[in-house]
Amino acid sequence: MTTTTPAIAAPAAGQPLAPTTIVRRDLRPDDVLIDVAFAGICHSDIHQAKEDWGTAIFPMVPGHEIAGVVAAVGSGVTKYQVGDRVGVGCMVDSCGECEYCLAGVEQSCLKGNVPTYNGVGYDGENTYGGYSRQVVVKDHFVCRVPDGLGLDIAAPLLCAGITTYSPLRQWHVGPGKKVAVVGLGGLGHLGVKLAVAMGAEVTVLSQSLKKQEDGLKLGAKDYYATGDEATFDVLRGRFDVILNTVSAKLPIDAYLSLLRVGGAMVNVGAPGEPLSYNAFSLLGGNKILAGSGIGGMRETQEMLDFCAEHGIGAEIETITADQVNTAYERVENSDVRYRFVIDAATIGA
Amino acid sequence: MTTTTPAIAAPAAGQPLAPTTIVRRDLRPDDVLIDVAFAGICHSDIHQAKEDWGTAIFPMVPGHEIAGVVAAVGSGVTKYQVGDRVGVGCMVDSCGECEYCLAGVEQSCLKGNVPTYNGVGYDGENTYGGYSRQVVVKDHFVCRVPDGLGLDIAAPLLCAGITTYSPLRQWHVGPGKKVAVVGLGGLGHLGVKLAVAMGAEVTVLSQSLKKQEDGLKLGAKDYYATGDEATFDVLRGRFDVILNTVSAKLPIDAYLSLLRVGGAMVNVGAPGEPLSYNAFSLLGGNKILAGSGIGGMRETQEMLDFCAEHGIGAEIETITADQVNTAYERVENSDVRYRFVIDAATIGA
Repeated sequence: MTTTTPAIAAPAAGQPLAPTTIVRRDLRPDDVLIDVAFAGICHSDIHQAKEDWGTAIFPMVPGHEIAGVVAAVGSGVTKYQVGDRVGVGCMVDSCGECEYCLAGVEQSCLKGNVPTYNGVGYDGENTYGGYSRQVVVKDHFVCRVPDGLGLDIAAPLLCAGITTYSPLRQWHVGPGKKVAVVGLGGLGHLGVKLAVAMGAEVTVLSQSLKKQEDGLKLGAKDYYATGDEATFDVLRGRFDVILNTVSAKLPIDAYLSLLRVGGAMVNVGAPGEPLSYNAFSLLGGNKILAGSGIGGMRETQEMLDFCAEHGIGAEIETITADQVNTAYERVENSDVRYRFVIDAATIGA
Repeated sequence: MTTTTPAIAAPAAGQPLAPTTIVRRDLRPDDVLIDVAFAGICHSDIHQAKEDWGTAIFPMVPGHEIAGVVAAVGSGVTKYQVGDRVGVGCMVDSCGECEYCLAGVEQSCLKGNVPTYNGVGYDGENTYGGYSRQVVVKDHFVCRVPDGLGLDIAAPLLCAGITTYSPLRQWHVGPGKKVAVVGLGGLGHLGVKLAVAMGAEVTVLSQSLKKQEDGLKLGAKDYYATGDEATFDVLRGRFDVILNTVSAKLPIDAYLSLLRVGGAMVNVGAPGEPLSYNAFSLLGGNKILAGSGIGGMRETQEMLDFCAEHGIGAEIETITADQVNTAYERVENSDVRYRFVIDAATIGA
């Protein structure tokens, strides 16, 4: 029996989001029905709803930062039961058989993972995201939200959290390491919290000093304005890792000059236009320019457990369903500290 | 007592090289006087002699691929004695005290390493390279050429060898790894030999199939022409490591698409113009774009020992001193398989 559930959808590219209802599939043996409690607003939701990245499917129900409570489980589900606190991130299916799925990096599935929304499932059905009262998700793509981690502050961890956690782990951030986080927004503020909790010495690099107080409160040791050219002289050769969360076109060579020998600049933000660099910036000092996209399911669970252990959640502003369009505008104006989450109980209420 | 020794020098930018004599300093306690046997011609010698890279010092005696025999040692030298077979690479001094020198990556010395030629020593004296009958070098920057490795085929290892060996080690090339070597020239042909000896499955990516027979003879399993667009479809997602030895401006995104998830493209060639890439090419599949410049002294010795153990030397064409200018032209026309070495006995003879 399918479920009809209230949702918020973009009817067409760039149009305001509006209330609607959608149908969730009947539970398959490995499915979990989740009562959504909170859905985070990721900047990529806005890009997708505006069709900035091409190939958008409308009507679109965005939302891939989902936290809620299990309402029902399919006949074969043993990992979760009704009442469990759970989360869903950026993908809801993958082939499960290719070398990357078997290695736990389902985001790199050779068949292509199925995005939580604005995607098409292997069954040919469009996927609809978390701006909704209920979602149905295959159990493998559901994570457990540990006790003690509020569902509201957990929701953004499912995308912004794992997107910053995974590269910090890949590049061995820990005690004795100096890490710069570029950009203090939805991703950056979690990057700071996570890197600090991993034991690193963290510096925020932001365009201005506007959010300096916040950055230091989040645990950063230093805070520099990249708008001030002296910053690049002062910090030359300082960092083991630069986590770049900014989607704007940065002067890559200048940032590479801030790395120590063998250091890595990891990009999780993706500007639409091409970036340019000089080969000598990489050759001198064996520098590394890398990218990282979300994380696998095992690592996402590890991240949630790490956050619970270290008392890390997103800094949020909770909104009601009717405030989504205003929230979109405010995200575009960088006017949020640091993530909006939609109280899903207000959707269709 | 200083030594006057015959050499070949570029008198000014872009002018033909000509015979001359230069003065080598009196031996300091930690100095080694070397009778040069062979000096390799590196493409960078030509760039420097033409002042392509700026800041050239004339007259210039190029040469940083030096193999020879110890003729005398300073009073404090214990590591070498007269008659030892030795080599000298791209640098002849570093501070010895900074964290990078202490870590054995003298090429990244914070004070700045002293290049073998076209540099200025910490004593304020210009440095002159290996196109010369004799050189005087601080013992720490002298390597031992193992028995069984000919001095002629060893000379190019001191730059081309270490420049390819170091990144292959940094990026964990070994059995079970698929490696592409881009460009089959002075660096590339050694990259192939070394990666094969490390146990990897090696593919050569060259503009055309002109050198295919050579590539396979060097141990490559596959050979593809990058001029053929189908190559990029066929090889999509195949390689753990791409070693790029080409100094031309490559379409970086296309090459990144050939990497496996988490794979690295390491650049040892340095085009003068900036390169461009799309951030999504790095994000999707956690790809890595890295650079590597020569190697430290410990690793250079390790490389020479590895080469002796595996019977690896450069493929060379030996020339006399009077053929240097012709050789330069031929290098610029890619008309050498794969390295010229100057028989130093013919310098000033």
